[in-house]
Amino acid sequence: MYFAPRMDELKPSDIREVMKIIAAKPGTISFAGGLPAPELFPSEDLREVVNGLLNDKAGQALQYGATLGYQPLREKVAKLMEREGVKATADNIIITAGSQQGLSLSGMLFLDKDDVIIAESPSYLGALSAFKPTESQVVSVACDGGGMLMDDLERVLAETPNARMIYVIPNFQNPTGKTWTMERRQKLIELANKYDLPVIEDNAYGELRYEGERIPSIASIDTEGRVVHLGSFSKILAPGLRVGWISASPELILKFELLKYGADLQPNELVEMMIDGYLGSFSLDEHLKKIKAEYKARRDLMIDVIRKEFPTEAKWYYPEGGMFVWIELPERINTRELLKKAVDKGVAFIPGGSFYPNGGIEYAFRINFSNMKSDKIVQGMEILAELLREELK
Amino acid sequence: MYFAPRMDELKPSDIREVMKIIAAKPGTISFAGGLPAPELFPSEDLREVVNGLLNDKAGQALQYGATLGYQPLREKVAKLMEREGVKATADNIIITAGSQQGLSLSGMLFLDKDDVIIAESPSYLGALSAFKPTESQVVSVACDGGGMLMDDLERVLAETPNARMIYVIPNFQNPTGKTWTMERRQKLIELANKYDLPVIEDNAYGELRYEGERIPSIASIDTEGRVVHLGSFSKILAPGLRVGWISASPELILKFELLKYGADLQPNELVEMMIDGYLGSFSLDEHLKKIKAEYKARRDLMIDVIRKEFPTEAKWYYPEGGMFVWIELPERINTRELLKKAVDKGVAFIPGGSFYPNGGIEYAFRINFSNMKSDKIVQGMEILAELLREELK
Repeated sequence: MYFAPRMDELKPSDIREVMKIIAAKPGTISFAGGLPAPELFPSEDLREVVNGLLNDKAGQALQYGATLGYQPLREKVAKLMEREGVKATADNIIITAGSQQGLSLSGMLFLDKDDVIIAESPSYLGALSAFKPTESQVVSVACDGGGMLMDDLERVLAETPNARMIYVIPNFQNPTGKTWTMERRQKLIELANKYDLPVIEDNAYGELRYEGERIPSIASIDTEGRVVHLGSFSKILAPGLRVGWISASPELILKFELLKYGADLQPNELVEMMIDGYLGSFSLDEHLKKIKAEYKARRDLMIDVIRKEFPTEAKWYYPEGGMFVWIELPERINTRELLKKAVDKGVAFIPGGSFYPNGGIEYAFRINFSNMKSDKIVQGMEILAELLREELK
Repeated sequence: MYFAPRMDELKPSDIREVMKIIAAKPGTISFAGGLPAPELFPSEDLREVVNGLLNDKAGQALQYGATLGYQPLREKVAKLMEREGVKATADNIIITAGSQQGLSLSGMLFLDKDDVIIAESPSYLGALSAFKPTESQVVSVACDGGGMLMDDLERVLAETPNARMIYVIPNFQNPTGKTWTMERRQKLIELANKYDLPVIEDNAYGELRYEGERIPSIASIDTEGRVVHLGSFSKILAPGLRVGWISASPELILKFELLKYGADLQPNELVEMMIDGYLGSFSLDEHLKKIKAEYKARRDLMIDVIRKEFPTEAKWYYPEGGMFVWIELPERINTRELLKKAVDKGVAFIPGGSFYPNGGIEYAFRINFSNMKSDKIVQGMEILAELLREELK
């Protein structure tokens, strides 16, 4: 049988492959997946909400609904966008199946075969998987601790006439944990305006800031309606619910509606109403306060071991929020090989090579601090520190 | 800004547009949408299941899960495929966001720009919307009450070297309610084998048979692993849950997994576990018995008014199951115009032109009998009968 040429581009996600290895070895201390802490899910509150819904509103919650999403939830999400400095109404919002679907629909909206996406190096590999079915290519821009290097971005833009969109994760980036400075955000918008390009601002981690001041979103300084801002309840409520959103100009939202209709008709009505009910009856801020306190404590524990026990040749970035620490080793160390040794000792991480769309850099790795409990973090990090000391001696 | 060329292909769904008109006029008797009866949703049973889940298994139900779907649910769905005469294991199953996502992923797997889908005339318009982003084209095959006309299919296959897949709805087709004979199913598989084409068998309505014998699925007579069978819980449990499945060869399932990962990472874990729990603790057969009895009664009421009160010039098909009756009027009647008059009188349907991918036939319409209660069906059908008598006199 014949398959569409796009299938040649698709390969299994390295992360999902690592997760399978871990699943096959129960008891592994996993710093691999970008998983929230399950013990912090507001399950009791959600239970109360869904109980009420299936008692009083089952006929609506279990029925077909609107492609754009449940209107009261769209209104509440528009309100949430104020935190990002964005004035939005429900007309600016479409509900998606996690922000992953926002990525996939953005690819479909902007990318044709051989078009170019400009992305950070490294970048979120799930986004690269979401864009690949369009048969587009990624051109990477060099980054430092403050985001993309604007000189490099200007060079790439000047050299890439078929660039069609810019994809960035400005807050607590996946995989590096880096956060863009305000200056870089402003310069990015200037350049996007100059080259008439859309900017996909992936903000899955924005609410998880453990210190320092919130930096306004790129969407908040967009005056031309060219930013597609992706938000998600996965990291702040629960990923199993698969609810995220796109905030963009009403013109773009109508185009996303057409794509969403073809892709899966509409969001999950029951779960939309659950989240709407949760936001109406409980305090998201109280919940965020709780999970941020815990994630901060876990990050601090992880950083503490890195500071005290990692070899000095291991370079790392201090994340002010999010879920990840990014480690760069000397170039002679291949972290795919290192992973095998680590898993043998009972610890897992994600090799950094997976995050480089054009490959080549195999000496970094990503560790997650949100999922494992404190004792496991200390235990796992000490195993990792010992392994690194052996490998780097 | 530049948009991908696929966006030129996408237009708002006529059905969703009609639904908006109806929503703006509360009290309309709607035979338009393909909606199940909300009062028959097993909401109390689902409430019991989700309560238990959020008490005992919240850490899993609200967490990230597998791209292919929740393993126990995949096993139960494989078992359900026995009803279709298909021997399946979990390796043959991927869970999707309704069968709409199964359609969309099938398009991505098999279709490139300018490729051709061979489909029934008329066909389900949501499928056409799902395939359109691939920039493929539809070539229609003429049908009678027993499915596609095999002479016409052979002619089309011989004339269309860039045909890449065959899309059919063999049971209680949307929009016509027609069911394919066994002979046509067998001939279809022979031709698919001869031309080495995949067959997408959309079976959203298969369980809703109100009389006569179940006819084996096309998947059950496929010996070469070329049938992609799409199932759904939308019509037999609740569409708001957005859970369907693809049953296919393990080789194809792995390709669908790659596409699903890019599209939205994974199914909704909570809702998968809800359905799994429901299937484990309650009797789907008992529930089906209940909804089938009610839908049969509603169909009979609708058919009764058609038989007694519709002008004889109105031709229609007797559906042995499903949710729809299809009416063909004399060619001089434009049913888009007719809809406006009907809505003024308080009744809605879907004009048939929407279901012809290449347009041109504007004198048919589809009416749904599953959603409205008995008294509304009689009341609405009498209004429609009177309108037709006026228009056709």
